[in-house]
Amino acid sequence: MRATVIYAPKDIRIQEVPDPQITEPGDAIVRVTHACICGSDLWAYQGVAGREPGQRIGHEFLGVVEAVGPGVATLRPGQTVVAPFVWSDGTCEFCREGLQTSCPVGGFWGQVGSDGGQGEAVRVPVADGTLVALPDGLDDATLVKVLALADVMSTGHHAARAAGARPGATVAVVGDGAVGLCGVLAARRLGAERIIALGRHASRTAIARRFGATDVIAERGDEAIAAVQELTGGTGAHAVIEAVGTEESMRTAIGAARDGGFVGYVGVPHGGPAGVEIGQMFDRNVGLRGGVAPARAYIPELLADVLAGTLDASPVFDMSVGLAGVPQGYAAMNDRSALKVLIRP
Amino acid sequence: MRATVIYAPKDIRIQEVPDPQITEPGDAIVRVTHACICGSDLWAYQGVAGREPGQRIGHEFLGVVEAVGPGVATLRPGQTVVAPFVWSDGTCEFCREGLQTSCPVGGFWGQVGSDGGQGEAVRVPVADGTLVALPDGLDDATLVKVLALADVMSTGHHAARAAGARPGATVAVVGDGAVGLCGVLAARRLGAERIIALGRHASRTAIARRFGATDVIAERGDEAIAAVQELTGGTGAHAVIEAVGTEESMRTAIGAARDGGFVGYVGVPHGGPAGVEIGQMFDRNVGLRGGVAPARAYIPELLADVLAGTLDASPVFDMSVGLAGVPQGYAAMNDRSALKVLIRP
Repeated sequence: MRATVIYAPKDIRIQEVPDPQITEPGDAIVRVTHACICGSDLWAYQGVAGREPGQRIGHEFLGVVEAVGPGVATLRPGQTVVAPFVWSDGTCEFCREGLQTSCPVGGFWGQVGSDGGQGEAVRVPVADGTLVALPDGLDDATLVKVLALADVMSTGHHAARAAGARPGATVAVVGDGAVGLCGVLAARRLGAERIIALGRHASRTAIARRFGATDVIAERGDEAIAAVQELTGGTGAHAVIEAVGTEESMRTAIGAARDGGFVGYVGVPHGGPAGVEIGQMFDRNVGLRGGVAPARAYIPELLADVLAGTLDASPVFDMSVGLAGVPQGYAAMNDRSALKVLIRP
Repeated sequence: MRATVIYAPKDIRIQEVPDPQITEPGDAIVRVTHACICGSDLWAYQGVAGREPGQRIGHEFLGVVEAVGPGVATLRPGQTVVAPFVWSDGTCEFCREGLQTSCPVGGFWGQVGSDGGQGEAVRVPVADGTLVALPDGLDDATLVKVLALADVMSTGHHAARAAGARPGATVAVVGDGAVGLCGVLAARRLGAERIIALGRHASRTAIARRFGATDVIAERGDEAIAAVQELTGGTGAHAVIEAVGTEESMRTAIGAARDGGFVGYVGVPHGGPAGVEIGQMFDRNVGLRGGVAPARAYIPELLADVLAGTLDASPVFDMSVGLAGVPQGYAAMNDRSALKVLIRP
């Protein structure tokens, strides 16, 4: 089959790789119909996150079950399924608690030795625990909405929950990438009264408004903190979503939080702890929680809303490519001419 | 009157200072009958936290109302009262939400221009909001138990709540000072099933056991993390109390937390963010919350238990002095020959 392979920073290739095979009884093979490129894939593309030359890439996909191992109980060939960005067995104590990202047998698509989501097919370990089966007959537009649950929308939801978005709350969102925008949508879904999006790209702030942002501010850093305070009577936002992962974004998020509030962070931290203003957090009782989102825990709840027509994160996809177009997709996201790239292998 | 004054590191003096006067309508004057020395006072004593030469010190006290300003509605001379370590107006939105430490008119006893708790009397601003009146006729032993609510027990409670101590949980406590020990007591009070105290001083671990610790480990750093994991089937503690405030203690606390758990931190952070292992927190969804404890919010609830005879943190006081003995009290806490020093001015 053909799949996306990363060799070095900015060296993304589409090439022939071995067809996936059932190797464990709990495996399934999924033929990928929809995949996409994540902002976090750019860390590898830019060389900030290391990869082995020849490693697969891509961790968001949806497709049709092609084969299942003898130990798979709940899935059958022909079913359409969506995969969260981490596989998990569904039976361990962490999975039962809804923190499938800490499953001891779990792993990330594209890690060494596994298939990536940006290819024609994927071997899915512990398929019963990992995959979520979809109703038959969904149209393409709906499938694109469901694809967003594999990571970006689930991650926005995780950030919004971690930040404490709730009815009546003011939520500020640091980061106008696809995850930040999904954080806006998640905050609105959780009942936030006011949602302040930080961003300066007109095409992105337009999506933020569409997703529920009541205010948009273009400032950054200390000026952004001051702007959030001005909009909130001097006190800051009850809940702040940090969806970037740099030292500056973390510092901005903490500064924009109201005393006693939370920063919910989902940007993979590449700034180290330097931006975690612990003295300020201490004095003002600002909490910090979040991390890698247990998408598997959230997909059933969010899927229900997608199928009911009340949740649609698909506007974050503003470019669509076939598998051959994936390298151009990376380049477009890297130069910010694309927000998020949909792939139809 | 006489009061404790700090001039420089290790230069603590008892001297004559002006008697406190009512200067604002909401003031009260409290004649101090019981005070104490806090572990955080040692940061000033050691010169780690700066103080102006001649600044007062001490922020935990209990005493009798001597006079009230014309704007005081709820207090009258002769009442015995306990003060939380921060004054607050009781009417602003933060006070109403139970985060009195963020009251815009609030302040700390001993800050420049204010009286400290380690003296014969204190001018109490916004007395209606700040002071908690006690029933008449409490005996001395009970008053000592109540004094602990001014800071150390309320701070231990804040840490335990922030960490998520709850029925059935395993709680680990980093720090065997008075706050850490009160964290043990608070965790037990909140129903924790298992409480692992980190400490190596026999007199302190004995108190930890008495306060409810089910396990005591003497290791530090990575070895302490390994010991907590071994006691918890490899997963770590649901809730970790960080009651020291150094880079190493924060790193230990985060490492000892179970995936998805919380570190509740109340040690004044003197290590900066270096020990905040944000990458590990992200991968394992470990949250961090806490800070300066809103003792004023907790005193009524904890006081009820003290008066009911079910809460007694007074074993943390292992040395008692008059005002003249305060410098010796600092020296004893600084060389760890005393855990916490009670003062009867």
